[in-house]
Amino acid sequence: MELRSAIALILFSLFIFANHVHRTSAERSTYIVHMDKSSMPKAFYSHHYWYSSILKSAKSVTQTSPDIDKPEPKLIYTYDNAFHGFSVVLSKNELEALKKSPGFLSAYADSVVTLDTTHSYKFLSLNTASGLWPASDYGKDVIIGVIDSGIWPESPSFKDDGMTEIPSRWKGICQAGQEFNSSLCNKKLIGAQYFNQGFRAAFPDDPIVMNSARDEGGHGTHVASIAAGNYVDGVSFFGYAPGTARGVAPRARLAVYKVSWGSGVASDTLAGIDQAVADGVDILSISLGAEEINLYENPLSIASFGARQKGVLVCFSAGNRGPSFRTIRTSIPWAIIVASGTVDRWFAGTLTLGNGKTITGWTTFPARATIRNLPIVYNETISPCNSPELLAQAPDQSIIICNLTMENTYFDFTMYYLPQSNVRAAIIISEDFSIQRSFSFPFPGVVISPTEAREVSDYVSNNDAPIATIDFQQTILGTGPRAAPVLADFSSRGPGVSYEGILKPDIMAPGVLILAAYHPYTPRPTIGNNIFLSTDYTLLSGTSMACPHISGIAALLKAAHPDWSPAAIQSAMMTTANPLDNAGQPIREDGNFVATPLGIGSGQVDPNRALDPGLVYDASVQDLVNLVCSMNFTRNQTQTILRSSYNCSNPSADLNYPSFVTVFFRADQGRTLTRRFQRTVTNVGDGAATYRVKLEVPVNTTMRIRPETLVFRKKYEKQSYSLMIRYKADIEIQHRPGSVTWIEQNGNHTVRSPIMVSAGADFFG
Amino acid sequence: MELRSAIALILFSLFIFANHVHRTSAERSTYIVHMDKSSMPKAFYSHHYWYSSILKSAKSVTQTSPDIDKPEPKLIYTYDNAFHGFSVVLSKNELEALKKSPGFLSAYADSVVTLDTTHSYKFLSLNTASGLWPASDYGKDVIIGVIDSGIWPESPSFKDDGMTEIPSRWKGICQAGQEFNSSLCNKKLIGAQYFNQGFRAAFPDDPIVMNSARDEGGHGTHVASIAAGNYVDGVSFFGYAPGTARGVAPRARLAVYKVSWGSGVASDTLAGIDQAVADGVDILSISLGAEEINLYENPLSIASFGARQKGVLVCFSAGNRGPSFRTIRTSIPWAIIVASGTVDRWFAGTLTLGNGKTITGWTTFPARATIRNLPIVYNETISPCNSPELLAQAPDQSIIICNLTMENTYFDFTMYYLPQSNVRAAIIISEDFSIQRSFSFPFPGVVISPTEAREVSDYVSNNDAPIATIDFQQTILGTGPRAAPVLADFSSRGPGVSYEGILKPDIMAPGVLILAAYHPYTPRPTIGNNIFLSTDYTLLSGTSMACPHISGIAALLKAAHPDWSPAAIQSAMMTTANPLDNAGQPIREDGNFVATPLGIGSGQVDPNRALDPGLVYDASVQDLVNLVCSMNFTRNQTQTILRSSYNCSNPSADLNYPSFVTVFFRADQGRTLTRRFQRTVTNVGDGAATYRVKLEVPVNTTMRIRPETLVFRKKYEKQSYSLMIRYKADIEIQHRPGSVTWIEQNGNHTVRSPIMVSAGADFFG
Repeated sequence: MELRSAIALILFSLFIFANHVHRTSAERSTYIVHMDKSSMPKAFYSHHYWYSSILKSAKSVTQTSPDIDKPEPKLIYTYDNAFHGFSVVLSKNELEALKKSPGFLSAYADSVVTLDTTHSYKFLSLNTASGLWPASDYGKDVIIGVIDSGIWPESPSFKDDGMTEIPSRWKGICQAGQEFNSSLCNKKLIGAQYFNQGFRAAFPDDPIVMNSARDEGGHGTHVASIAAGNYVDGVSFFGYAPGTARGVAPRARLAVYKVSWGSGVASDTLAGIDQAVADGVDILSISLGAEEINLYENPLSIASFGARQKGVLVCFSAGNRGPSFRTIRTSIPWAIIVASGTVDRWFAGTLTLGNGKTITGWTTFPARATIRNLPIVYNETISPCNSPELLAQAPDQSIIICNLTMENTYFDFTMYYLPQSNVRAAIIISEDFSIQRSFSFPFPGVVISPTEAREVSDYVSNNDAPIATIDFQQTILGTGPRAAPVLADFSSRGPGVSYEGILKPDIMAPGVLILAAYHPYTPRPTIGNNIFLSTDYTLLSGTSMACPHISGIAALLKAAHPDWSPAAIQSAMMTTANPLDNAGQPIREDGNFVATPLGIGSGQVDPNRALDPGLVYDASVQDLVNLVCSMNFTRNQTQTILRSSYNCSNPSADLNYPSFVTVFFRADQGRTLTRRFQRTVTNVGDGAATYRVKLEVPVNTTMRIRPETLVFRKKYEKQSYSLMIRYKADIEIQHRPGSVTWIEQNGNHTVRSPIMVSAGADFFG
Repeated sequence: MELRSAIALILFSLFIFANHVHRTSAERSTYIVHMDKSSMPKAFYSHHYWYSSILKSAKSVTQTSPDIDKPEPKLIYTYDNAFHGFSVVLSKNELEALKKSPGFLSAYADSVVTLDTTHSYKFLSLNTASGLWPASDYGKDVIIGVIDSGIWPESPSFKDDGMTEIPSRWKGICQAGQEFNSSLCNKKLIGAQYFNQGFRAAFPDDPIVMNSARDEGGHGTHVASIAAGNYVDGVSFFGYAPGTARGVAPRARLAVYKVSWGSGVASDTLAGIDQAVADGVDILSISLGAEEINLYENPLSIASFGARQKGVLVCFSAGNRGPSFRTIRTSIPWAIIVASGTVDRWFAGTLTLGNGKTITGWTTFPARATIRNLPIVYNETISPCNSPELLAQAPDQSIIICNLTMENTYFDFTMYYLPQSNVRAAIIISEDFSIQRSFSFPFPGVVISPTEAREVSDYVSNNDAPIATIDFQQTILGTGPRAAPVLADFSSRGPGVSYEGILKPDIMAPGVLILAAYHPYTPRPTIGNNIFLSTDYTLLSGTSMACPHISGIAALLKAAHPDWSPAAIQSAMMTTANPLDNAGQPIREDGNFVATPLGIGSGQVDPNRALDPGLVYDASVQDLVNLVCSMNFTRNQTQTILRSSYNCSNPSADLNYPSFVTVFFRADQGRTLTRRFQRTVTNVGDGAATYRVKLEVPVNTTMRIRPETLVFRKKYEKQSYSLMIRYKADIEIQHRPGSVTWIEQNGNHTVRSPIMVSAGADFFG
């Protein structure tokens, strides 16, 4: 048995991360082909016929090759909304022939994509009295497309109580399939489709377990209910986190696109995004990602550019490969990338010693165990609790102290051995944050810190017959034992690898122990070693859970401000995000370091402030085109992203973005560099306003901003400013955070952008 | 490890049944002394001083005996309400001296007494629209005294929401004690007292675990909430039996008298009853009993006579020693003795085979286990499931079939071994009713019958890869797999041993798997072998649970008919009780035999019919005196029951009772005997009514009734009839049931009395 790492306990990823699909056929595999649709001859009725014709030609030119006996290349999908092209199963010879076809831009082998509740709305201060919820009518009529593992349509979170008729602009369908008939959609769940032809081609020997939009895993159900689940009373995780579940945008619509089949491939994911854009979604919530590869061969990057061109805001999870730097999975400049933080909720077991002293420990043991006035045993020999033989020495019906700060001790193993013993409960000493957030707790016990453990051992050693009581199923809200949010250890960190010019991640949202809807037949918690329980609502952690929080808030902002562009919505969330925690201190990482913008982006999203940001950094599609044009890609690479007609006459890396990053490279080491930014902000406040700048200057850096005051005479007026950052390229200080904040005079708006001066990837190659 | 019998799984007795308290001192022990209070010299201010004086005298006359160095006899309690006397720790010499005191009637060694929810109100057809609930205002202001193991006052069942002010006639107190302060009582729980001086004297080495009225076991809490628990929403037993809990009389008051301390003794129990009568309770609910001993030395018999003299109706549980005849614990003629039946509720696990076939099995596994499309394994070698070694041969993650109809197989052992295996669930084949009602189910599985098992084995043997799914936490109401009520196997059967002249038990009420309030720190169900769960509401079975149903209904009748005597209330319940089950067939026993009145008395209580019985068989205290006077007791024995002043001028065994029993003895074998009964019924219907008799004649018997028509011209008019039963004394037909039913002409009332012709105890002695 391989040791599961502790982190695996608290993350939830459906997809296996891998560079490329393992080839099941030595000769043929799936390619995603990007085409220049402007090259399509007029004779073709549709792109579909054109692509078919191209494939026939590619086949014919290989007649003398070893492929002669093979059937024609198999067209899997054609794409026409988020981008132009198709996916197809080809041999290498056929691919080479295809590359010579007119209109061919690029082709990349299909790749595996990886997927990365419900007190969080309160932690985000969403409330019915004021702010974004009432202002947006709870997201009424905004459509969130969820690209994931499908949906469990019977979950009460997807009932349509209180929902109005579906807007006529909606073009999606409710696709029938295995255990899923088309009547399962309703006014909340307005669409459900599934895409697995790419998966079938890549893994022909793997059966499709549930050939429909029905969620066999639970991930898609969880994510969808976080974004836009309806109100459901009386929800809990086995008594923990009890209350009314609701999504961030409880009146928004959901359309789900199932692309995950245990694992998933890019061609299916692209098909789902392409369909969602065609169907008319407003927001795309994508808690999955491919490996960080070049933007022009990253299917998610290409598809999300297309979606953004059609006015769809796209949200991605940052990935769960933290806490190291450069672990971010998706550094797409035209999508919002979300990091994951904690919420101010603690699942507690109260340990009461015989002397009356109480200690609040961590537990999620999923039942109300009775541990009352039982003897506590602290025996140094037994305390590693790392073998059944050791635990057999513990007295029956006792509470044992397990010290997991010792060498060769592992929470998972201890939890596996304890149910085989005659012990009744365990007090587990650990300083590991992942254990202190574990929701896999198959045996009654509490986790306490080494400091707290001292009080226990003092009591035990000074008492002839020490006893204790443990109460389970307690939930503590508020600051509790730790301030919140804290940047989760697992949340992937920047800088981005495929593109370093835009700071990623963009923002942080709740993504630790989120309670949301779940597939009830996926066993979640266990009791003992062979009893698997099911639940309709479960706790999951991951950036996958953070992303739909942002998707839901974006939906609320879209409903409140129907005229705002995706860039404006993104800017509103970012410039109002909070870099401080609920104790008023800078947001920290697990382990107590102050987090940097490479972990938290602009900070923790603050939806009510995002409703009224004062100023926004807007950006048009042409601005994004100009950015791509600046990236030194080949013509075909550029066109793969931008599609048929684009204007590269004005390339610019200085996108009007609400954050700043500047990178120094190995060659610069020791030199002083200067970087200049130009930004334009639009006044979206009501009427005239004057803003003055406040700078937080990174170490070893100077900054100059001109002007230092921005005066707006009316709403929608634009003002520009220039920012110069002069900094020493010094690898000894790799990451230097700062910020630019525009503060309204005689007003309430503050518009903050983080700054990051950062060592470039070539230092780390 | 001793084999627990299967029956032990489903019964719940707090007290250990034993003849007499094991003497902890060879020389002194506790005696309950009955006194003739009319002999008390006028000089004594109170009975207490008189008794103290007598004890001093008893001590002084033994000055020359070996007791000379001993302290004075220790007075434990004085009793003055339910009867006159005291309990005291005495040596035998002192006892002999005491017997010579003026006013001494009798003395008996203290003895151990043994103790014997919430869909049942629906099964009893109690409803808010019509009938007894609205007619009684839900039992408003009637006070039920519960003599038991105390109370868990924090249970939501004892909140006083909706209760009015306590009536001024109430004299009881809320006694402070360990973990119990006097503010814990309220308008629902109006009194709480505890009595353990007798227990301390009998078991001086046993610590008093909770020295207050707080319930340490849960039995008293359960019983009290069945009788008069308030409304509590959202209650279940780990997902089974979900709904709103409420007692039978949700607006009645509760006064609890704790007399059980793990086990209990008669002297404390008498003290509790005595105090309850003094405090002013209307109904006494006593789910405990002493061994069946002579009525004049049975403390419960004596105390309940006194209570009845004060107008208090007393209810006892029949005991849990069935199904043999002559196992009834308490055949007190002046109390109502309650048998226990099932309700129309089944706790189900649905087993769905891979071929779509479903079987409804029994389960109470206390969690929502996930058993979905797992392989089923039927392996004859493994199927006894009676050792860890056998179960280790079963494939991991499988559903195993355990055949417990084989020799040397035991449900408890199988449930102990399964959690140690890698099996995921078990299909248990059993024909044992106690297993089919087990609420100890620590491992996921279902119990099915051998007939149902054939379908499973057919499927498994005809299929290469058989699979199944099991769904837990299901509750089936209505007739379900079996009609209801069925007389529980464990319910003690008549005839009574101490007195055979009155048919006992009197009536049956729900007492199998009753959901009611519980002490949350008493671990109830387990998962696996070392995980103990707690619950605020649990399922218990026993006649202990049947008795408070009758107490609650009696409280409702008392509220609806404040002028009715205890005898009238008892008669109303008995003559309207239903001898048929919900399939319209005679109530059966477990095992499918038709039950007789020796098991079910008059039948299943029907509260709405009891509200309006038409006729009642009333009886005064003098009628009860006349009965005692007919019992051939000595004067002192008689006076022990009847107290100071009584008139034995008209002894009569023909109590005006709503049932009939006639016994033949060994000496009569082969002869034809005649027994004559005289009965008087009172018209409690509104106005004139005419009744005609309908007889069910026992086998080998003839009956004559005169008159056959009773004509009443007005309410409260009385009419008498005589019944002659002529029967052959034939031990071959020991038990011959019959009935007398008065049927109203042009009206709705039917007034039924069971008849039992029965072989007497001397055949069996």
